[in-house]
Amino acid sequence: MLTRLDQQLAFILELDKLKGVLRRTLLVDGTRNENTAEHSWHIAVMVPLLAEHAPPPVDVARVTKMLLVHDVIEIDAGDTYCYDPAANLDKAQRERRAADRLFGLLPPDQRDDLRALWEEFERNDTPDARFANALDRFQALLNNFHSHGRSWQQHHVTLAQVQQRMSPIAVASPTLAAHVQSLLTEAVQRGYLADEKRG
Amino acid sequence: MLTRLDQQLAFILELDKLKGVLRRTLLVDGTRNENTAEHSWHIAVMVPLLAEHAPPPVDVARVTKMLLVHDVIEIDAGDTYCYDPAANLDKAQRERRAADRLFGLLPPDQRDDLRALWEEFERNDTPDARFANALDRFQALLNNFHSHGRSWQQHHVTLAQVQQRMSPIAVASPTLAAHVQSLLTEAVQRGYLADEKRG
Repeated sequence: MLTRLDQQLAFILELDKLKGVLRRTLLVDGTRNENTAEHSWHIAVMVPLLAEHAPPPVDVARVTKMLLVHDVIEIDAGDTYCYDPAANLDKAQRERRAADRLFGLLPPDQRDDLRALWEEFERNDTPDARFANALDRFQALLNNFHSHGRSWQQHHVTLAQVQQRMSPIAVASPTLAAHVQSLLTEAVQRGYLADEKRG
Repeated sequence: MLTRLDQQLAFILELDKLKGVLRRTLLVDGTRNENTAEHSWHIAVMVPLLAEHAPPPVDVARVTKMLLVHDVIEIDAGDTYCYDPAANLDKAQRERRAADRLFGLLPPDQRDDLRALWEEFERNDTPDARFANALDRFQALLNNFHSHGRSWQQHHVTLAQVQQRMSPIAVASPTLAAHVQSLLTEAVQRGYLADEKRG
């Protein structure tokens, strides 16, 4: 019979594996790929700093918690590259199974709490989830831009693809969306990102 | 003239460097040293899961935010190994200078807010700070234990040193302190940690 603490510690130990899940994004200094644990930390710190740019009021503590756990499912399901349509076909099913196992390590009340936050993030249908998704995408853009677009080039990503990926930021925060637009213009000018229309 | 967003983004970009600050602690799988960004994520997720074991009520959102920023100063000051007395002599001064520069990148209200949280963590004189410090130490113990004490052995750390390092956990959470004690007993039995009294 596991105590609550045993269950909590089983989940906490399992979390360590997220430090070994690599994303396509590089660190700003370009030395290596970012892992999902440090990405999750980065966007969690951004919540209180940038919340003033989200016009529908958001609950800073709730968005922080949502972002801290939004990628835990990658421990089992891996990081699915947003610009890879084939890998995205079975993403939902893989991630649901991962959520069953991973959140299922916790006592039922905590399992349900974290799973509901993850599902809300995935549905992206509340102001909190929309702001969380915006920060998740915005940080990837910042790192890709400041590492000179090397990850975009390695994966032959085009301006149109990044624009589509960043489009939900407009609803969450017009201020951040305007900044995204100026970074994308500069990324094309500097040759970090291919604008295929220009050929 | 920098806008608020410019200042916030300057700080957010700088944060990326914490992913390159290595701690003495290994990942649970023993493959490499943990960095401070992923450590900060790990303990931030632990706050809502373990808060029920902190008898003086703690503010989960506040402790989470405190832990997300408690090690940002390591970007300039580096990780000071807790079992290295020489390195700890000028730690406070190095970290104060780092706090001046790093938090100083932010707009004044956010600078003051994060700096106050960091100072409270360092003073360790409130229930929130005591619980934050307890989790910071507890996670290091978990990782050291589950990576078979290799970091302790590499640095010739003894049971007495770890016991002293873990002693503040007793005030923050008797439940976690009891678990620490059982892990330490097992660590000595398994030969992960040297009990010098036993010779």
